[in-house]
Amino acid sequence: MLRSWRTLGRDYFYESPWCSFRVDDVELPGGTRIEYGVLESGGFAAVVPFTEAGGVVLVRQWRQPLGAFTLELPSGGVEADEEPGHTARRELSEETGYRAEGLEHLASVHTSAGRTTEVCYLFRCTAVRDERGPRPEPTEFIQVVELPLGDVLGKVSDGTITGAATVLGLLLAGGGTIAGGALH
Amino acid sequence: MLRSWRTLGRDYFYESPWCSFRVDDVELPGGTRIEYGVLESGGFAAVVPFTEAGGVVLVRQWRQPLGAFTLELPSGGVEADEEPGHTARRELSEETGYRAEGLEHLASVHTSAGRTTEVCYLFRCTAVRDERGPRPEPTEFIQVVELPLGDVLGKVSDGTITGAATVLGLLLAGGGTIAGGALH
Repeated sequence: MLRSWRTLGRDYFYESPWCSFRVDDVELPGGTRIEYGVLESGGFAAVVPFTEAGGVVLVRQWRQPLGAFTLELPSGGVEADEEPGHTARRELSEETGYRAEGLEHLASVHTSAGRTTEVCYLFRCTAVRDERGPRPEPTEFIQVVELPLGDVLGKVSDGTITGAATVLGLLLAGGGTIAGGALH
Repeated sequence: MLRSWRTLGRDYFYESPWCSFRVDDVELPGGTRIEYGVLESGGFAAVVPFTEAGGVVLVRQWRQPLGAFTLELPSGGVEADEEPGHTARRELSEETGYRAEGLEHLASVHTSAGRTTEVCYLFRCTAVRDERGPRPEPTEFIQVVELPLGDVLGKVSDGTITGAATVLGLLLAGGGTIAGGALH
């Protein structure tokens, strides 16, 4: 019989509207006490936007944890009380200037269950150009990159695209062998 | 032209052998100063172990960030100077008692590029029963679950399996549309 860990204490080392970091004082089933660090995050939504011409709309942006630019699906943090599908529409519009039509939920997954509460909500949609253009937030400095799906998959294979959410979204949207979503 | 963010300072709020949490003082290209929290982690290896009978070997374990048990691929942290393929073999053996044969790298991905340095190294292998049985570490309390691949995919679809690494590993190992790995 598998027993759960007992949480004896919890200290927050950092708190912000975007993420928090806490350390739990935990008793394992065998009686051993350990400390366990957990990143808390409200999670983010990412969308695979297919244009009517068969392209995929991606964004190139700076990622501070990697100290590098990445090529990724449009994505952004789910705000308090926000429905993740709304986040996906909002981020696609703000970051790329495309409007989401036929938005469809693909899956929701824990990004790293051993270390964080973070959930990634994955969607696909048809991307329709909005004449108003992109409206990035002031902290976002984003380049919109539109490529045929085959080229995008090539960039996964050659290591240009490295984000789990982007790779998983492309696989699921491209018709993977798994029909439903992961987290409900 | 996309410009990188300028890191003006860096404070560590927590440091342990398993993970650290830092907050960077950053200047955005427009001149705005922000603080940005980053989880540092050495990353982990996960393996899709196929038995000769066509089953997949999974593990059920407590995940403190989720406050719940999960069903996942065998996985574990890559130790300093450890080759990720070695981690995959070691964790499979320790957690399940199976030996990895024909270990093959599927992909390596950033689990959440906006928040952490963490990399997940994904492998597949043939799992051969080792007569010595599992040798879990004292902090690990793990139940080995062996299921046919179809049942495992069903558990992704119905939301029992929610870990991004597990879902991505199963898709890639099951012959997704992407041939190579992501991060090299």
